[in-house]
Amino acid sequence: MTVDVSVPDNIAAFFETPTPDAWLDEACRRLPEMLLDHANCELKAASTALGFLYRYPDRSALAQRMSRLAREELRHFEQVRSIMVEMRIPFERLSASRYAGGLRDAVRHDEPCRLLDMLLIGALIEARSCERFAKIAPRLPARLGKFYGGLLASEARHFEHYIAFAKSESGIAETQIGERLAELKAIEASLITGPDDEFRFHSGVPTRARPASFPRRSPG
Amino acid sequence: MTVDVSVPDNIAAFFETPTPDAWLDEACRRLPEMLLDHANCELKAASTALGFLYRYPDRSALAQRMSRLAREELRHFEQVRSIMVEMRIPFERLSASRYAGGLRDAVRHDEPCRLLDMLLIGALIEARSCERFAKIAPRLPARLGKFYGGLLASEARHFEHYIAFAKSESGIAETQIGERLAELKAIEASLITGPDDEFRFHSGVPTRARPASFPRRSPG
Repeated sequence: MTVDVSVPDNIAAFFETPTPDAWLDEACRRLPEMLLDHANCELKAASTALGFLYRYPDRSALAQRMSRLAREELRHFEQVRSIMVEMRIPFERLSASRYAGGLRDAVRHDEPCRLLDMLLIGALIEARSCERFAKIAPRLPARLGKFYGGLLASEARHFEHYIAFAKSESGIAETQIGERLAELKAIEASLITGPDDEFRFHSGVPTRARPASFPRRSPG
Repeated sequence: MTVDVSVPDNIAAFFETPTPDAWLDEACRRLPEMLLDHANCELKAASTALGFLYRYPDRSALAQRMSRLAREELRHFEQVRSIMVEMRIPFERLSASRYAGGLRDAVRHDEPCRLLDMLLIGALIEARSCERFAKIAPRLPARLGKFYGGLLASEARHFEHYIAFAKSESGIAETQIGERLAELKAIEASLITGPDDEFRFHSGVPTRARPASFPRRSPG
């Protein structure tokens, strides 16, 4: 029995470029790595949210929302870690995907452009994560598929919060925000459609059909 | 009507050195600064908990507990910020107290001593915070006193989790852990009983009877 989940309309409308099928095929072959990197992503999403609190501590509405967001990401981190323990997936350190770093390279340094870019990138990462939750869920074993369907329901509006803050906190005109979002969307699309040597939760089109040696085996 | 709260037995038994009355007197005169620094402390406590996740990601039980702890600290951060908004306390950047830095200076660099020291320091900070929640609550306006009483109830066992992990995760013999805890307790006691030019949530004996200029007033 497969899980009946599809990409929500608000997320489908947000992206021009969907996740390539080749990534989904690879993800189904490499579930332990996907889960491990997904746990990392939830932790990093929480840290990113806290970064806004440290950098813009005087913005009360932003502080409250980002703190709540961080709590939610941490709860999901715990859930993914529990599933990994249940599935006896050993923990390993994974190098970071090129994805978030590739987006952050585009962040401008002067304010309020920096705040705007960080918020728009937050929106892109959240929306892409949800799109992948939705697309992978029906292809997973029932227990995992149900879990990803639940995550989707819980996170599907996160990217809208980021967009709303981009509008309310940056003081930048909406047309300029739209133009900047289009630029960042193009970078994001190139990262998920370009060939990628590594498999991660946000990686591009896999260049290798065979999984890397994960989980690593003890010698002998 | 005062709030009926006292220092829980487990915390009273943990410390040889109670918070000096002079700090409590000063805190009552400088509530806005106390709340502001308390909000910072909750945020830093969350970040410290996440630090364990990044540094020791393969320790599943530690990861789960620290993630939950971070969520709880963030919830309290949000509550303190809400109270500040309600009380119209303006946000200002405050320099960090010498307290956490003074304790961290004592952390040894080699493992597992580093892990042990970080966990024991976590226990000390959590326990001291609770002791101050308990002692300040009856002296505060009812709404605030009730809030601090609630925080105490929710955080009173945090330090015991840290101590339990010090025992279960460090692999160090219990007598050595006890000796190290005694050394760190002595440092902690000197930080809260020594004269302190700054007033913060974890500061020492105030050297100035008059509050600093907080909240800062606009010129004219």
